[in-house]
Amino acid sequence: MSKQGLKIATIGGGSSYTPELIEGFIKRYNELPIRELWLVDIKEGEHKLQVVGELAKRMVQKAGVPMEIHLTLDRRKALEGADFVTTQLRVGLLDARIKDEKIPLKYGVIGQETNGPGGLFKGLRTIPVILEIAEEIQELCPDAWLINFTNPAGMVTEAVLRYSSHQKVVGLCNVPIGMRMGIAKILGVEASRIQIDFAGLNHMVYGLRVYKDGVDITDQVLEELTNPTNSVSMKNIVNLGWEPDFIKALKVLPCPYHRYYYQTSKMLEEELKAAESVGTRAEVVKQLEEDLFELYKDPHLNIKPPQLEKRGGAYYSDAACSLIHSMYNNIGDIQPVNTKNLGAIASIPYDSAVEVNCVITKDGPKPIAIGDLPVPVRGLVQQIKSFERVAAEAAVTGDYHTALLAMTINPLVPSDTIAKQIVDEMLEAHKDYLPQFFK
Amino acid sequence: MSKQGLKIATIGGGSSYTPELIEGFIKRYNELPIRELWLVDIKEGEHKLQVVGELAKRMVQKAGVPMEIHLTLDRRKALEGADFVTTQLRVGLLDARIKDEKIPLKYGVIGQETNGPGGLFKGLRTIPVILEIAEEIQELCPDAWLINFTNPAGMVTEAVLRYSSHQKVVGLCNVPIGMRMGIAKILGVEASRIQIDFAGLNHMVYGLRVYKDGVDITDQVLEELTNPTNSVSMKNIVNLGWEPDFIKALKVLPCPYHRYYYQTSKMLEEELKAAESVGTRAEVVKQLEEDLFELYKDPHLNIKPPQLEKRGGAYYSDAACSLIHSMYNNIGDIQPVNTKNLGAIASIPYDSAVEVNCVITKDGPKPIAIGDLPVPVRGLVQQIKSFERVAAEAAVTGDYHTALLAMTINPLVPSDTIAKQIVDEMLEAHKDYLPQFFK
Amino acid sequence: MSKQGLKIATIGGGSSYTPELIEGFIKRYNELPIRELWLVDIKEGEHKLQVVGELAKRMVQKAGVPMEIHLTLDRRKALEGADFVTTQLRVGLLDARIKDEKIPLKYGVIGQETNGPGGLFKGLRTIPVILEIAEEIQELCPDAWLINFTNPAGMVTEAVLRYSSHQKVVGLCNVPIGMRMGIAKILGVEASRIQIDFAGLNHMVYGLRVYKDGVDITDQVLEELTNPTNSVSMKNIVNLGWEPDFIKALKVLPCPYHRYYYQTSKMLEEELKAAESVGTRAEVVKQLEEDLFELYKDPHLNIKPPQLEKRGGAYYSDAACSLIHSMYNNIGDIQPVNTKNLGAIASIPYDSAVEVNCVITKDGPKPIAIGDLPVPVRGLVQQIKSFERVAAEAAVTGDYHTALLAMTINPLVPSDTIAKQIVDEMLEAHKDYLPQFFK
Amino acid sequence: MSKQGLKIATIGGGSSYTPELIEGFIKRYNELPIRELWLVDIKEGEHKLQVVGELAKRMVQKAGVPMEIHLTLDRRKALEGADFVTTQLRVGLLDARIKDEKIPLKYGVIGQETNGPGGLFKGLRTIPVILEIAEEIQELCPDAWLINFTNPAGMVTEAVLRYSSHQKVVGLCNVPIGMRMGIAKILGVEASRIQIDFAGLNHMVYGLRVYKDGVDITDQVLEELTNPTNSVSMKNIVNLGWEPDFIKALKVLPCPYHRYYYQTSKMLEEELKAAESVGTRAEVVKQLEEDLFELYKDPHLNIKPPQLEKRGGAYYSDAACSLIHSMYNNIGDIQPVNTKNLGAIASIPYDSAVEVNCVITKDGPKPIAIGDLPVPVRGLVQQIKSFERVAAEAAVTGDYHTALLAMTINPLVPSDTIAKQIVDEMLEAHKDYLPQFFK
Repeated sequence: MSKQGLKIATIGGGSSYTPELIEGFIKRYNELPIRELWLVDIKEGEHKLQVVGELAKRMVQKAGVPMEIHLTLDRRKALEGADFVTTQLRVGLLDARIKDEKIPLKYGVIGQETNGPGGLFKGLRTIPVILEIAEEIQELCPDAWLINFTNPAGMVTEAVLRYSSHQKVVGLCNVPIGMRMGIAKILGVEASRIQIDFAGLNHMVYGLRVYKDGVDITDQVLEELTNPTNSVSMKNIVNLGWEPDFIKALKVLPCPYHRYYYQTSKMLEEELKAAESVGTRAEVVKQLEEDLFELYKDPHLNIKPPQLEKRGGAYYSDAACSLIHSMYNNIGDIQPVNTKNLGAIASIPYDSAVEVNCVITKDGPKPIAIGDLPVPVRGLVQQIKSFERVAAEAAVTGDYHTALLAMTINPLVPSDTIAKQIVDEMLEAHKDYLPQFFK
Repeated sequence: MSKQGLKIATIGGGSSYTPELIEGFIKRYNELPIRELWLVDIKEGEHKLQVVGELAKRMVQKAGVPMEIHLTLDRRKALEGADFVTTQLRVGLLDARIKDEKIPLKYGVIGQETNGPGGLFKGLRTIPVILEIAEEIQELCPDAWLINFTNPAGMVTEAVLRYSSHQKVVGLCNVPIGMRMGIAKILGVEASRIQIDFAGLNHMVYGLRVYKDGVDITDQVLEELTNPTNSVSMKNIVNLGWEPDFIKALKVLPCPYHRYYYQTSKMLEEELKAAESVGTRAEVVKQLEEDLFELYKDPHLNIKPPQLEKRGGAYYSDAACSLIHSMYNNIGDIQPVNTKNLGAIASIPYDSAVEVNCVITKDGPKPIAIGDLPVPVRGLVQQIKSFERVAAEAAVTGDYHTALLAMTINPLVPSDTIAKQIVDEMLEAHKDYLPQFFK
Repeated sequence: MSKQGLKIATIGGGSSYTPELIEGFIKRYNELPIRELWLVDIKEGEHKLQVVGELAKRMVQKAGVPMEIHLTLDRRKALEGADFVTTQLRVGLLDARIKDEKIPLKYGVIGQETNGPGGLFKGLRTIPVILEIAEEIQELCPDAWLINFTNPAGMVTEAVLRYSSHQKVVGLCNVPIGMRMGIAKILGVEASRIQIDFAGLNHMVYGLRVYKDGVDITDQVLEELTNPTNSVSMKNIVNLGWEPDFIKALKVLPCPYHRYYYQTSKMLEEELKAAESVGTRAEVVKQLEEDLFELYKDPHLNIKPPQLEKRGGAYYSDAACSLIHSMYNNIGDIQPVNTKNLGAIASIPYDSAVEVNCVITKDGPKPIAIGDLPVPVRGLVQQIKSFERVAAEAAVTGDYHTALLAMTINPLVPSDTIAKQIVDEMLEAHKDYLPQFFK
Repeated sequence: MSKQGLKIATIGGGSSYTPELIEGFIKRYNELPIRELWLVDIKEGEHKLQVVGELAKRMVQKAGVPMEIHLTLDRRKALEGADFVTTQLRVGLLDARIKDEKIPLKYGVIGQETNGPGGLFKGLRTIPVILEIAEEIQELCPDAWLINFTNPAGMVTEAVLRYSSHQKVVGLCNVPIGMRMGIAKILGVEASRIQIDFAGLNHMVYGLRVYKDGVDITDQVLEELTNPTNSVSMKNIVNLGWEPDFIKALKVLPCPYHRYYYQTSKMLEEELKAAESVGTRAEVVKQLEEDLFELYKDPHLNIKPPQLEKRGGAYYSDAACSLIHSMYNNIGDIQPVNTKNLGAIASIPYDSAVEVNCVITKDGPKPIAIGDLPVPVRGLVQQIKSFERVAAEAAVTGDYHTALLAMTINPLVPSDTIAKQIVDEMLEAHKDYLPQFFK
């Protein structure tokens, strides 16, 4: 790495999240001296890149840190000599996500944009792009770590590990940090005093044990969670509360996304209701984003606007900056990320991506062996892993039957026939972003 | 084993299936010289035991084989010195199965009496009884093999392997042989020329490859299965046909029970329809059984009545007699049975029960290593295995939360709340047969 | 396969073993109708090929079977359209084996031409040739099975599985059949009544359990083996007898080659003694072979001469013909061969070659899962597997350090320095046959 | 744990190492406020306990820390309410170790007091005592961690994990810290800047990768090690230097104890030479210890005497205090210790003890998944693990044949017959400390 500071390239730099990231980099400038931050986007995103890029520049100037902000549509230029590459792109933008959510709903199926039917199509659109970026990294900055925030982050990490020549990849998600913050809040203690043994897959991660200052308090936390007002939830997921006896029976902490699998019928009902009133989550977010970009345009704005927090990416900046800081400075602290399993979770394939606590070093994340997931949660995790692997294969091959198979084996999909109907309609709807299926 | 022939004890001897078994034993008397067959039942089944037992005696007499038929309520006496013990009991009789099917349906959930919500309760009732029998075998005839036909056969085998001191157990099912016969029929060849690499779990077994005279014809068979008239089905499962593209995508043969998982919504619809018209399968079977017992009472009947075939146990006798014959005579042929995995299927725990092709020897079945299940089918199989293990634990411990957890993780159950409702109602409904939960 | 009978290509057809094979093929002609047998050899072996080939023709004529014997130096012609390819070649002939045995002895180390230091160099010479043949098979007769008899058979099978595009390979050895025959003789029963659960690696295979008619008699057999006169040995391995308490402690049957590892110092002493008197085994064999070829030249000889039995390949023909017969006719019987593990032996890598009981079918051998090797024998087997893998890598890469590493980790080699001395001298001695090391 | 500070019980408190430990505790008193340190010994060690205990008291007084030193022969009293229990006992004292080393030498075999023939007998003497202590801990202070320094530490940890109801055990060794210090010294950098990925077994641990400030410098370090003057050695192991080409080939760092296995013949020669001149290591140490105790008696001595460093336990105090400090204060730093594998090293059994980098927390060490050992080193590690497991079983059962089997499979032992001779002589020699074999 350069003596004079870091070069970071952020693909999808025109995202509404970018101010969050900028704020984080500014705060940690002392430990993480970024010399150049390259915000990269595609032609279609040029306007947003300008808007958010100018805000970024104002933020940096206000903060008085010597970080250069570069805005570019030339990805290769941005990658050249980069130390870290972060990806927060959205192929097809929010309009594609709206389809991911709404088409399945037409067939009475939850869209779920990460591990569900919608996530399958998000993966089919996104994976080829990320793999292309990974190959460019391997060519232009082979020592750089690819820090992927793009959903479906588990499926994307799996795809890079399985199909790319560039193996330096970490998938990052704000769900685990959100769970930790939520529990700290419930218990009324500083978050730094809470540790959680995270293990599972992206958006399917469990907190196996919870500790306060190293002392196991899992039972107490589970007891707290039987109180429906004590929920660990997320902006983008309806909070239905857990069945108290179920939480007691489970003996580990589910993540908010587990609601889709352990409360499928209730979530479906809520989503149908929302779709008919306020709109799907994507529609809500689209409006939020438009509002945000209006704010961003204000030439007097030179800090992250507080409205961004409604967007759903809480702690995103914290998670991202902590990770890059620990890697750059070889800190060796523990963070939950998506990485190659290597036996850390016994019943997940050795070479698959898992989300698990890792020691974060300059040499990358080193997963901590948790032994095995408890028997009761193992099956669902394995089923989602099968789904992710078949989906990644479909994304790479563009094979219709493989995509159909991925859809059918998704636990949210109730039959082969419905799977086929959804796949057929979505393939058509996303045609422009799925060239591999229309060769 | 005795020089003068075998002693076999059949627990649940009063079953309507017994004539099927008797016929099989008579046919194979030369290779399988049974000296004594003990039909055992409980007080409540005494009348049926008498009826079917007398028919058995008439069948033996007609056939002219020197096989003694003993009818008894004294299980220990039957077990003493036995060479094989077969179990075909039904705790709570068909009335319990009717509840297993109907209570879930009230909540919009398929009952499914083996790997579904109904199967959970069938397991909770059955496993303690089978474990008791296994311990008696260990005491009274420790060299005897327990051949279990009782459903849920996978869960029961898992429970014996995990919780019993008697480890000589084989779980047997007629699904694989039915698949082989069905395919032979579709192809118009002798069944003996068809071989299938079976692997998976009971009622969740796949045909990984199909061979004709040792030559792989899997693709041809899958092609045939895309033709809806070419179904491999079973009496007790509605045949809805597979989505042709799904079968092509799957690349392996599903078993008829896979319909519950790959066609959940369609099966549910069919079951609801049936429940409102002809009744659930259990209700249909109950009527069939009553009719059968009427027939059995006829003192002139001295063969297996052809009506028995409607009952759904096709090839049951063949499977059972072939297995016992191959074990007794150390034949070393290949049969699919439920046995301890030992690494034969890579992603199923080493010590769990699997249904897989085995070499059948006097020393027991030796599983053939198939490597691993294809990725797309692995997840569902693992989920059912998690379910079976948690269910078996619940059966042994009588722990309410464990039972609730088993119900919630079953792939047919749509939410934690519905799971709780079903568990609560079923626990109450089956109270008399679940003493472990009401200590 | 051809309607009119099989085509078999035997590489190294000029071997002194060939009459053994011919005799086997003649005996089984009815089940195994070989139309064409192509004996292939290289220029240097042309004379021996002629001699043994003419004998083969006389044997066939005498037997009156319509099997065509073709003699050729054109390997590609022999492979074209072949159904089975057998390899029994010896790169560098017996002179190379003499070096394999004698050079290590100079440094006080046993040569051991299969899993020992000698075997390393035999592997380095042989593996590239076999891999070349495997690629030709893939090109010219991709459906043909490569039946490899060439030592070190375990290392060679590992190399083909790991480095060849042709995966239809079976490694065959006469050690297991020899053990079975030996035990049958000790017990005074027909060999067909004895079954053994073989598992391990080539020349490092254990009999985990021994059965008579399916009944476990392992303890009795072990007891017999404590009697030094009751040895299961081989022509080419000195029989020192086992320490009775060791055999009792081991609880499983070692193979004769285990003497090198469990009796290293005694074997070394014997080999040093032999080298100074009758010569090493290779020297003895060389003389035997010369004598045999003198016999073979006799134009009146038209059967396998009984003297061949001294050569050490007892049951070789039986093992080979049984295997090909069972594959061709899809028999499904049990034979111990070298094949891909696939989980059959838990603590050996999933994708490594193992020697284990398999069901032999037209579709290839299907390994029977034995679970795991007993703890006490696991370590040595794993060490030899490490050795085989590193040796195979050295053979393929021609990397000096990899070869040195293989030598150093071999359990017969007492230090890194001695390893280097042996490697350096042997590399030089075998220079002509190790082009990959002298690029 | 108590509000007012820790209670630590040190079994074998009369050891000559104790001042090392005391010094460490004093240095870290601020972070590790030990209220009571109980030094426990047995009747035979009472005198040494007094001598070293009085020195400990003087050291504490000099340092001015309020740590109470208790000397006792009553182990139960010492354990009651303890927070940590450390074991540094030596069953049979140095006289037993002298036999461990000298008896094998009589048969031309290295004694090697940890993973060798001597280690087997050390294990047989020690394991029953440690298991007794572990059960007392489970009874008297179940939350306490057993920190075992007693050799053979790997075998002892394996035995506790496999046979004890008390599972809170960590095995600690100074070899890894010694390697880190040695490399730092060679490179001329602060040890804190060097990180090593340690993985393997106790006294059979490898440094898979070496980092300076997180940057991989493994190749540079290996290059340095080809220079014989740059050795990472230990006081108690002769440094013969590695064959430079071997170190390059190995690609990972061996530990000093690997000399016994990769340089067996050279080590044997050195040991034979030493035995005839200065005496075996045990004899040397015995003299050293006598000298040390003479020093310890000096009532003016109130610090750790520098002569202790010759004893061979360099960094022992650092390793021990760091471990206890990190556990007590839930630090979450990385330390290499012996703990349950849990999949951290793929080819070692899931439930076996391994020596591997762990995150050290109040909840115990959490192993970091290294994936798998490189193929070339895997076999030897697995062989030693087999040895450790069989040895532990022999220690627990007192079964002669199991002990003989452990001896025979040890890679240092050249034949079954020699194994038996050594076992027989050693059993007799250590009779008084092996009651389980003389029931």
